[in-house]
Amino acid sequence: MNNENAVTSNFRSNEQEGVRLATWIRDSRPSAIQRMLVDAASPEITSFALGLPAKELFPVASFAEVAAATLANQPSALQYSPTSDELKAQIVGLMAKRGVNCRPEQIFLTAGAQQGMTLLTRLLLDQHSAVLTEEFVYSGFTQAIAPMQPQLLTVPTDPRTGIDVETVETILKSGVRPALLYVVPEGHNPLGNSLSLAKRERLVALAEKYNLPILEDDAYGFLQYGSENIKPLRALNDRLVFYIGSFSKILAPALRVGWLVVPEEFITPLSIAKEANDINTATFSQHAILSWLKAGHFENHLAKLKQTYVARRDAMLSALTRYMPASVNWQTPNSGMFIWLELPVGLDATQILEAALQRAKVAFIPGQAFCPGNSAMAKRGLRLNFSNCSELQIEQGMARLGALLQAAVAESDLRQRSLALV
Amino acid sequence: MNNENAVTSNFRSNEQEGVRLATWIRDSRPSAIQRMLVDAASPEITSFALGLPAKELFPVASFAEVAAATLANQPSALQYSPTSDELKAQIVGLMAKRGVNCRPEQIFLTAGAQQGMTLLTRLLLDQHSAVLTEEFVYSGFTQAIAPMQPQLLTVPTDPRTGIDVETVETILKSGVRPALLYVVPEGHNPLGNSLSLAKRERLVALAEKYNLPILEDDAYGFLQYGSENIKPLRALNDRLVFYIGSFSKILAPALRVGWLVVPEEFITPLSIAKEANDINTATFSQHAILSWLKAGHFENHLAKLKQTYVARRDAMLSALTRYMPASVNWQTPNSGMFIWLELPVGLDATQILEAALQRAKVAFIPGQAFCPGNSAMAKRGLRLNFSNCSELQIEQGMARLGALLQAAVAESDLRQRSLALV
Repeated sequence: MNNENAVTSNFRSNEQEGVRLATWIRDSRPSAIQRMLVDAASPEITSFALGLPAKELFPVASFAEVAAATLANQPSALQYSPTSDELKAQIVGLMAKRGVNCRPEQIFLTAGAQQGMTLLTRLLLDQHSAVLTEEFVYSGFTQAIAPMQPQLLTVPTDPRTGIDVETVETILKSGVRPALLYVVPEGHNPLGNSLSLAKRERLVALAEKYNLPILEDDAYGFLQYGSENIKPLRALNDRLVFYIGSFSKILAPALRVGWLVVPEEFITPLSIAKEANDINTATFSQHAILSWLKAGHFENHLAKLKQTYVARRDAMLSALTRYMPASVNWQTPNSGMFIWLELPVGLDATQILEAALQRAKVAFIPGQAFCPGNSAMAKRGLRLNFSNCSELQIEQGMARLGALLQAAVAESDLRQRSLALV
Repeated sequence: MNNENAVTSNFRSNEQEGVRLATWIRDSRPSAIQRMLVDAASPEITSFALGLPAKELFPVASFAEVAAATLANQPSALQYSPTSDELKAQIVGLMAKRGVNCRPEQIFLTAGAQQGMTLLTRLLLDQHSAVLTEEFVYSGFTQAIAPMQPQLLTVPTDPRTGIDVETVETILKSGVRPALLYVVPEGHNPLGNSLSLAKRERLVALAEKYNLPILEDDAYGFLQYGSENIKPLRALNDRLVFYIGSFSKILAPALRVGWLVVPEEFITPLSIAKEANDINTATFSQHAILSWLKAGHFENHLAKLKQTYVARRDAMLSALTRYMPASVNWQTPNSGMFIWLELPVGLDATQILEAALQRAKVAFIPGQAFCPGNSAMAKRGLRLNFSNCSELQIEQGMARLGALLQAAVAESDLRQRSLALV
């Protein structure tokens, strides 16, 4: 998510005046997507683009209560402070709900999952280190590692079943030793899938065999809508799996608090990297979240989130069935916030986005934004978010997007037939 | 400031189990100071160690008011969001009070001054880039750049008058082209001094002549106690001076909000680096600070801070005069939070700290913590904070430290005389 407006200016220009930028940023460009996000902020656009929680579900009243009490009772809540051991203990309790046994000494507080990735990758990557990801990968991860100019090794991934574990094994067998593997086993971003237990077990077995650290991004892990809750990788291995958690999707992003579960010997290097990065995690947010958890709000709030999000997911699935051309495919996500659409051969999601914004007044993220390798499949894929729009907006938005895609498919078919005639 | 307890463990141990750490962190060690900070948190210790604002002066009531109103009126205050243009406009107003003319398009919001340094140095440094600092430098800066394994070029600095501009010129004249120069022209950390206008003008002239970017850390700039308010470097140059500001010392550190004033073409690369680092700056903090500024609390609050801090500074100066051995030297700081003590030859501040914690029950930071080059002067220097203790605590703490130093000086003199006799 880009949070500045001036994304279109050419920032190479300042070199002419003498200020030399670091190599990695000279290679970075504000993406087409970042520009689209600015457009999508227009009130006439219904946006299915970002991974936003529903703002109408924020627990404003209960949070206001704990915030007021925190300020009234703890003047040191506005001071720098060591991280809260009590909050770590609460997080141990949350992790138990995810099926993970851990100790407070293994918890490290961060300013959210993105910072968790930043800190962990600073500890695990040297300049130009090799990093293993899927061909479709959360763009925030590739951004986080960009300053280290890594060598990215991507393995195929299946929209339905996720990462191709065979290829991971082939790469490791060949003698390549990546610094880490990044995965989102639950509520995959952008594909929406969840890994089977068998795949999780094989990944962990490979990690153990080849001493491969795994970064497990579980930002969406609490948002599961089915009955089958498969445990995170961290439940299978506590030595090589670095777990990334966040309050952004289960409480509120604006507090900027997340956590890591890591081997205990990583807490010291993490604290060095964190202090260097931004000193410490907002004390006020820590105290307020702690009070909110202690007051017992979490379970009810999570149940409400899941109830609303599952209804929105189902509304989107139903609308897709009714409005999309037969040649468009998708899966039912069991968790997270995203549905991945595959357009038929001949359609390009980035081109469709331009028309979608202008004519259908809907926004989404085209697959290429998540595909550092730029595969043919990426061109035809797009990510839809279902958590941040009402069922009515979903129904109407999908109707408009469906009509646009029906027309695009018809036009593409016509073009194919004309070509066949030539 | 270290914010974790487990600073004593040896984090090389995990390598034996196969996880390879990045080179820069293998070279990093939790400092003796970090261990001292844990000790200094003990309630029986009076700590002059950290750069903490006085917690009893936090504007808890007015902040609670704006926080409650923010939550009641703006549910999107808990959401991800673009940075607040209104807050940027308010910051333009604050900068005008510092004598700096700038535009909202030149303001970039950060999670505090430390993150500002992190983001700017990510944009300006390649791996192993040369960086120019004083021989005494805020340790947070050297930590921020550590992952880039820079080549640190240090120039002499005078506790009274600050950076030796002649040496800066000599280095630049010799053809060396550092990626940047880091300075704290106002309320220097750790030395407490302020640069003369002449030195500021010469630094900016050198920057212009040699196209040298200057990072101007002004975290303490609003806390000036005299009548002579010299403008920041940014007021003299808007193309090469990158200004770092923060709400931590003038409102509250726990909100984690600061800002940069940069050439406009740096906003886009900064937004890429920021998004990669931690997505965005806490929306709730942004809104609450904006409301607090708009409600007009700033001027009165700053006046109260300055009134209290100047009284504490004077209490410390008075106590130093009465309790310190004649061979101990210091200057009167015109701004900031620190007084720098120079012990006589033969005394080592790091050794004194051990005794100070155990016997005098006071904490400070020894000079070596701020001296990457480890000079003889560093050994004899120590930093005292005067903002975070009451006048009574300052009086009593300085009496105990003074007695300890009187004894140490007497013992050292005795040793010298014995040596002379041998």
